[in-house]
Amino acid sequence: MIASLLTRAVAQYPDAVAVVDGALRRTYCELGVRVARMAAAWQALGALPRDRVAILAENSDDFLQAYFAAAWSGTVLTPLNWRNHKEGLARVIAHAEAKLLVATPRFAELAAATLAECEKKPVLLLLDDAFAAALPGIPPLPRAAVEPDDPAHLYYTSGTTGDAKGVILTHRNVTSHALLAIAALQLSERDTWGHIAPMFHLADAWATFAVTWVGGCHVMVRDFVPTTVLDVLAGGVTITNLVPTMLVDLVHQPGAAARRYPALRRVLSGGAPIAPALVAKVMATFGAEYVQTYGLTETSPYLTMSLLTEKLQRLPAEQQFAWRCRTGRPLAGVEVRVVREDLSDVAPDGREVGQIVCRGDSVTPGYWRHPAATAAAFRDGWFCTGDLAVRDAEGFLHIVDRAKDVIKSGGESIYSTEVEQVLFAHPAVQEAAVIGLPHPRWGEAVVAVVVCRAGAAADGAALLSHCRAHLGGPQVPKTVLFRDALPRTGSGKISKRLLREALRDEVLPG
Amino acid sequence: MIASLLTRAVAQYPDAVAVVDGALRRTYCELGVRVARMAAAWQALGALPRDRVAILAENSDDFLQAYFAAAWSGTVLTPLNWRNHKEGLARVIAHAEAKLLVATPRFAELAAATLAECEKKPVLLLLDDAFAAALPGIPPLPRAAVEPDDPAHLYYTSGTTGDAKGVILTHRNVTSHALLAIAALQLSERDTWGHIAPMFHLADAWATFAVTWVGGCHVMVRDFVPTTVLDVLAGGVTITNLVPTMLVDLVHQPGAAARRYPALRRVLSGGAPIAPALVAKVMATFGAEYVQTYGLTETSPYLTMSLLTEKLQRLPAEQQFAWRCRTGRPLAGVEVRVVREDLSDVAPDGREVGQIVCRGDSVTPGYWRHPAATAAAFRDGWFCTGDLAVRDAEGFLHIVDRAKDVIKSGGESIYSTEVEQVLFAHPAVQEAAVIGLPHPRWGEAVVAVVVCRAGAAADGAALLSHCRAHLGGPQVPKTVLFRDALPRTGSGKISKRLLREALRDEVLPG
Repeated sequence: MIASLLTRAVAQYPDAVAVVDGALRRTYCELGVRVARMAAAWQALGALPRDRVAILAENSDDFLQAYFAAAWSGTVLTPLNWRNHKEGLARVIAHAEAKLLVATPRFAELAAATLAECEKKPVLLLLDDAFAAALPGIPPLPRAAVEPDDPAHLYYTSGTTGDAKGVILTHRNVTSHALLAIAALQLSERDTWGHIAPMFHLADAWATFAVTWVGGCHVMVRDFVPTTVLDVLAGGVTITNLVPTMLVDLVHQPGAAARRYPALRRVLSGGAPIAPALVAKVMATFGAEYVQTYGLTETSPYLTMSLLTEKLQRLPAEQQFAWRCRTGRPLAGVEVRVVREDLSDVAPDGREVGQIVCRGDSVTPGYWRHPAATAAAFRDGWFCTGDLAVRDAEGFLHIVDRAKDVIKSGGESIYSTEVEQVLFAHPAVQEAAVIGLPHPRWGEAVVAVVVCRAGAAADGAALLSHCRAHLGGPQVPKTVLFRDALPRTGSGKISKRLLREALRDEVLPG
Repeated sequence: MIASLLTRAVAQYPDAVAVVDGALRRTYCELGVRVARMAAAWQALGALPRDRVAILAENSDDFLQAYFAAAWSGTVLTPLNWRNHKEGLARVIAHAEAKLLVATPRFAELAAATLAECEKKPVLLLLDDAFAAALPGIPPLPRAAVEPDDPAHLYYTSGTTGDAKGVILTHRNVTSHALLAIAALQLSERDTWGHIAPMFHLADAWATFAVTWVGGCHVMVRDFVPTTVLDVLAGGVTITNLVPTMLVDLVHQPGAAARRYPALRRVLSGGAPIAPALVAKVMATFGAEYVQTYGLTETSPYLTMSLLTEKLQRLPAEQQFAWRCRTGRPLAGVEVRVVREDLSDVAPDGREVGQIVCRGDSVTPGYWRHPAATAAAFRDGWFCTGDLAVRDAEGFLHIVDRAKDVIKSGGESIYSTEVEQVLFAHPAVQEAAVIGLPHPRWGEAVVAVVVCRAGAAADGAALLSHCRAHLGGPQVPKTVLFRDALPRTGSGKISKRLLREALRDEVLPG
């Protein structure tokens, strides 16, 4: 099914530029032929339909081809996080039982080191100059037959611990998500997507499919160098998704606001709460609409976006920023609800907290060879996200916390993001994470970990007094810790798990 | 699943106007409650989940509610063609085994007469003033649980003969089509759909779902009175689909071109070939884009639209009209191919003729209790449309004929639409249909049946000479017959079957 996205683009936009990667430009017609040749190479190396093919690659023409070569050959692509260490990668390869490991030259060493760790070694295919020279001589593979529910991708949610889970996405998951994203964002052939966030993660990878389907253009950013990225954004990109740290880095880049980004119409981000002031800065810098997004790898990924309704667009700009910060409205194409323990809907009052659950064609069938995790993730056919949220009268959801990050202190439930929002509003705060640390008296103590803005003073007393002015007593942190940076997951989100581990032995005030 | 389209609109656009029907205006919040009450009434009358509910109604607020009440109650709506006679309707009701017949007051007599013909009578629910008064007192029904592959609608393709077939559309068919239509037409809450073509037919009914999903507005036109329709189009409608005869009637209405239609952005039509001159006239009259569409009831319905790519939009306007007349490009969201007998693709050369086949979530699982027809409609998982087309280098399809309308004359295959296109180009021709009639010498004789423009002379010799100038010898009609009107199907298409029957005994020149 996914291959049909490419065949449509080849038939309807043969001469359109499919991909820009540095000086390289390829049309859809060229891309189509190269994909079928690459698929043939994979099959010749033993990767048969339904076999897993792991890949280690930076954002590139090669990565784009690999996504479609997997679809074309009926194999299951397993994108690897190149920030992971060789032992973690080897565990993913072993769990997925990958037949083939595809790597770009940049990751040749990491690939070799990983293979050395593997008991059952996949064949290694290096996408180097020698392969590039051989490719045009490989006869194209006929497109493999696939069924809608066949696995297309296997995304490992984390390779840093032993309990990594492989999220299965089927052909129907990927194509139905692509269509709902096209509908929500009104994507068309006039769009040029900037692949800036890593393509091994769905935060960017989904656009591979949606943008191809409508005949749009893919621009590759191999390395996140802020000045280069600004050049790319100024050079014709119409839409992109940035992880929150990238967003912060870009708007604070000297000269960023003085430039013009004439084609850019939307900047997406998500995975962390964002402050209205930052949204205002992003929109002023780029002259583009900011869209907060929410989704999971398990949901292909998007469930909601903070696209404003006509009614909200009539609000004064200042009020609009607050709406753009919210988690967003459920997209047409997937059912999203906020429910109580008994699966009934919470009241749409912006106050009652429930869990976000969802259902639809873009929702994973489950985890690879992990029936227990799969069974635990669903209730009555609804996928349970583990995210807690409220719902309001405008149909917007707003996440208050991950279920596992809720702090239980003195018998109360403290939603960490509510405290973080207050901290973000303080001018000295660049980043903040609020976690619970074990405490003999309160069960858990509310602890704020803060990264200050350049030039701002690390004044804990001032921050606590700011918190007391805006929060109820139990929500006020017991202490504020200052750090130069916060630990992050592979997709760039702040990792509260790593933060809790790092601070386990911190001595807290009584 | 279909019910979730409505719940999304109620949650996200509660105060937006959902429906305008004469002086009546209803918000999505009101619509949501009324649908749940109507669903309760149906269930109280014995229509349980999966039961069929037949409906006889003109385009109206009631019809809109009925479509969603069916989804809400888990019943299967069977829209009846009110142009059909009572015996035909009774046959459809019997074949569908409808438990309930819902009718608006306008069709009370036809409903009663139909029931008198039914051996096993469904319960009759008249949507009159008494029911309207009772509705607010009926407690809303909780939404019924449905699975994606449960039937949602049963559309009978023809009730005029004994071999009517009921096309099953499932919840997944309807919702996946709604999403692909939203994506293709960039539908949003800013859109107002004019329900002008009859809602019992998918040519209009699909918009019930797509427009609701994005929170758009439905404007009801109960009767096709050209002056009224022009008022509606001038009054805020942004998009609509008109059957070809409506289109012709409207643009020839005195004063039509002198008015302004400021909101109207797209006018869709399909089901018959259209001439570039008429497209130019439609676009000049309405100041809106004309889109030729192609689809079948079995495919929910759309498969292609003649939306121009950026490349084609750069052509001179005159050349663009010709592209807008073509059958169109396959939409993202459904796989559409033109294939040879062995299911391989025809060459994209605009010359090789093959059959259009398709596959995807918007394609029917088959015909109601008609396994033979279902089996005959599919080959290797591909639905066979019976339409013959060519494919070109821009990815456009163009239908040359229905497989069953191809004329076999003197050992040659004559595609009737090729001849019709030439006739359309003659200034005297308003409508034309080319059919094959049995002939002792050629097998079939090519016969043109023409409706002249008002004031134009019925000059057969002139038309034949025009044909000879533009067609190969075997394609030139043996005779031209003039008529005041052409017979039509329930959906307004010219019926070549009825035309052949009417002309069976025509004496043809040797």
